[in-house]
Amino acid sequence: MDTATPSPKSAYQELARLQLRLHRYNHLGSIVSWDRNAMMPPKGNEARAAAEAELDALVHRLRTDPQQVTWLDAAEREPLDELERANLREIRRQWRQANALPESLVEAKTLACARCEHAWRSQRPANDWPGFLANLRDVVRLAREEAELLSQSLGLSRYDVLIDRYEPGMRTADIDRIFGDLKEWLPGLVARVREKQAGEKVVAAKGPFPIAKQREMSHALMKLLGFDFAAGRLDESAHPFSGGVPEDVRLTTRYREDDYARSVMATIHETGHARFEQNLPREWLGQPVARARSFGIHESQSLSFEMQLARSRGFMELLAPILRATFGNDPAFEPANLYRLFTRVKGDNLIRVEADELTYPMHVILRYEIEQPLIAGDIEPDDIPALWEEKMRSMLGLDTRGNFTDGCMQDVHWSESLFGYFPDYTLGAMYAAQWFATIRRAVPDLDPRITAGDLAPVFEWLRANIWLAGSRWETPELVRRASGEALNPAHFRKHLEGRYLRE
Amino acid sequence: MDTATPSPKSAYQELARLQLRLHRYNHLGSIVSWDRNAMMPPKGNEARAAAEAELDALVHRLRTDPQQVTWLDAAEREPLDELERANLREIRRQWRQANALPESLVEAKTLACARCEHAWRSQRPANDWPGFLANLRDVVRLAREEAELLSQSLGLSRYDVLIDRYEPGMRTADIDRIFGDLKEWLPGLVARVREKQAGEKVVAAKGPFPIAKQREMSHALMKLLGFDFAAGRLDESAHPFSGGVPEDVRLTTRYREDDYARSVMATIHETGHARFEQNLPREWLGQPVARARSFGIHESQSLSFEMQLARSRGFMELLAPILRATFGNDPAFEPANLYRLFTRVKGDNLIRVEADELTYPMHVILRYEIEQPLIAGDIEPDDIPALWEEKMRSMLGLDTRGNFTDGCMQDVHWSESLFGYFPDYTLGAMYAAQWFATIRRAVPDLDPRITAGDLAPVFEWLRANIWLAGSRWETPELVRRASGEALNPAHFRKHLEGRYLRE
Repeated sequence: MDTATPSPKSAYQELARLQLRLHRYNHLGSIVSWDRNAMMPPKGNEARAAAEAELDALVHRLRTDPQQVTWLDAAEREPLDELERANLREIRRQWRQANALPESLVEAKTLACARCEHAWRSQRPANDWPGFLANLRDVVRLAREEAELLSQSLGLSRYDVLIDRYEPGMRTADIDRIFGDLKEWLPGLVARVREKQAGEKVVAAKGPFPIAKQREMSHALMKLLGFDFAAGRLDESAHPFSGGVPEDVRLTTRYREDDYARSVMATIHETGHARFEQNLPREWLGQPVARARSFGIHESQSLSFEMQLARSRGFMELLAPILRATFGNDPAFEPANLYRLFTRVKGDNLIRVEADELTYPMHVILRYEIEQPLIAGDIEPDDIPALWEEKMRSMLGLDTRGNFTDGCMQDVHWSESLFGYFPDYTLGAMYAAQWFATIRRAVPDLDPRITAGDLAPVFEWLRANIWLAGSRWETPELVRRASGEALNPAHFRKHLEGRYLRE
Repeated sequence: MDTATPSPKSAYQELARLQLRLHRYNHLGSIVSWDRNAMMPPKGNEARAAAEAELDALVHRLRTDPQQVTWLDAAEREPLDELERANLREIRRQWRQANALPESLVEAKTLACARCEHAWRSQRPANDWPGFLANLRDVVRLAREEAELLSQSLGLSRYDVLIDRYEPGMRTADIDRIFGDLKEWLPGLVARVREKQAGEKVVAAKGPFPIAKQREMSHALMKLLGFDFAAGRLDESAHPFSGGVPEDVRLTTRYREDDYARSVMATIHETGHARFEQNLPREWLGQPVARARSFGIHESQSLSFEMQLARSRGFMELLAPILRATFGNDPAFEPANLYRLFTRVKGDNLIRVEADELTYPMHVILRYEIEQPLIAGDIEPDDIPALWEEKMRSMLGLDTRGNFTDGCMQDVHWSESLFGYFPDYTLGAMYAAQWFATIRRAVPDLDPRITAGDLAPVFEWLRANIWLAGSRWETPELVRRASGEALNPAHFRKHLEGRYLRE
């Protein structure tokens, strides 16, 4: 009934228009997903799952719209500028990822994951491995099927296609090399640091720390870190996350009355993710080229904030007055004591998300070493606990026998089929160390400026080199342009040795 | 790629499946709309509007899917039970409404309304009628076009098709008769009541009334009224509303530190809407037959709660201890004083939503008498202020000359093209009076039971007769089954005279 004559469109414009439509549907999906985790009452769950699945199916149909085959080929021959070409590259990548999978598999995976994750919520506290295993087998079976189809389409190994989804261009061979090196020197470093710290005294602050006050403190910290509250919110959920859309970023954190330190660091971590999103290139929003480059690069922003900036000596001078203003004068809020507290290496934590900066990578390597053979079909889900226990003992000296709750059932990732994601946490930590080494070269007085409350050099560098870049370049090019070299794990080692042995 | 052979489906099943899909998309729309009003930070607005418009377009395309023509005809000849037949009737109604309108008009209307409503937010406080008029002309032009197309398709007058959208089956002729009668006796009643109340003393409670306490009080009231917090939430927004989905109802209210009474009644009003939604027939959710019958019937639930139940003498005995527990002992919280407060007829309020129970219908009639000629084309948007001022003076004795803010720009309805909606407020009040007359016949000791805190007879009657009925019957049949007769405005008059002259 529309009588206007449509103007002729280039194939590239058709693709971009479809991306914009997808972006808008994904906007709705992001908001309802945030709502499900932060707002939704329990009885809303079933209807919500059905509504979200309907949207997922719609998005998958659009992503695999066969018209794109012609458009993609035609667009390659059109006169495009550099950003359009980068956008086309990302559209093609997305299309290949989506098109390798039939809708029936996507639906089966959504259902299996929803079932597994939902049951896991009660199976985990009940230490019910056999119950969890029954669902996990389905998830793994479908993940292998998915990996096999992607493998055929992309010409990569089964596990490589999963890694590639979160960290495009990264391969198992790279990670083997990086993690192999890490395993050489990290355990020795942990032992030396623990010995060094054994004689240090850390004073604990007197609780309780009322949750209403922690909320105020979180807002103060986010303001200090430049979060734009006119374009986002902070709420609460069982597991902190950063969601929403670039124009309206939704962070969550969690509070415990007996512990203020966790919410401090969780909030700072998520604010790092948030500022990336809030500062993606505005004029391209809605197109893949304006999206965050990868999950590893995203994690490098949260860890730039949490590990590089917020765990520095200088930042403790900024944190101390906020803590005092929030909870009153406590000797534990002396900056030197805070620094000891936030860099304390305990090494006895069974839980990855609660691990300190030094032992965290060992938790990641453990997941990686189990996932890889699991997806390859060399081990079965039934084999996980024995492998987990052996690796926890050999890599961290910890005994997890019979403890599935804080063992192989501690993470939500496998229920949600996020195989290939874990390495990004440690790749992110390495990128972050590399960014700060670069910033320190450019700004030699960085630490005194942080101490004085001038965080602008950090934000400006990240904004210019990472945030505004979006997906304009593939990761190695982004890293080289930002820091002058490819990913170099030596910066991470230097950072850890500097902070934990010499400071 | 799906290799399963689909089982043959009846035309009815195809229609029902399409409705379920629409229902799920509308679920997403409801949640993001709630979010926009209750949660969204300002900079999210533009991207959100684009995402919601994309969803609206999708929903319109599905509603007008031409396959339905064949299915609708075939389904009429299929063996359906009574509920399926009622569902089919509603599907056909929805299809006829949607199919009369081209997508280009739907889009133009969405955009014109969004522009008008957005500008209105700042034009209203600025008393900027010329600015508002420029946008309103567009909205009215498109509303007339829409009404004309619907009129041709449904064989009704232009204004009737708009009324029919909110109150199916209701016609201008019915409303003319009902409102004509009301205008005969209501002004006289208002005058007599104001004279009677002139000698009454109402004690005001001492504020401020901290907002955190008002929040607690709202939750207590909603629990008393049977709201299921496992299937819904209470939040805050500039204008209270009831949104979300039946499985997860999202209410909002608003608080002012200097006034607790408004949030009390706003919360109770919205809880009436919410209980209807929370008690729609579960097994049919997702189909039109399980939806609330109409906007007028919906309003009859909020007004059953707010006007019939909560403004009764008995309810004041329940409200008083909640107020005392919240704000401390204040002589103003005596039940007799609360009753005088909540039934006070001021008659000098320019604002419809702040008007008392007695003068409220005059505000509605005023809108109705302007809308009707406006849609018919007998007057133009430019004529509104003069008509408004004349009617305010003649109907309520109030002078609004030059005051557009509290005059013809006070409601959001016209910006949003909700022509035909206003009569539902007063029809709802009449239905509510009719319901309570019926309940009182069935439960002669209703008032002492309310006084004793036993609200079950009210909830049980509403649940059995209204909530669980959904859209199973057309309105006259629903009303007859519930109360033994058609809509009878005499109950409303009797209720008002009883409450305001004799109690």
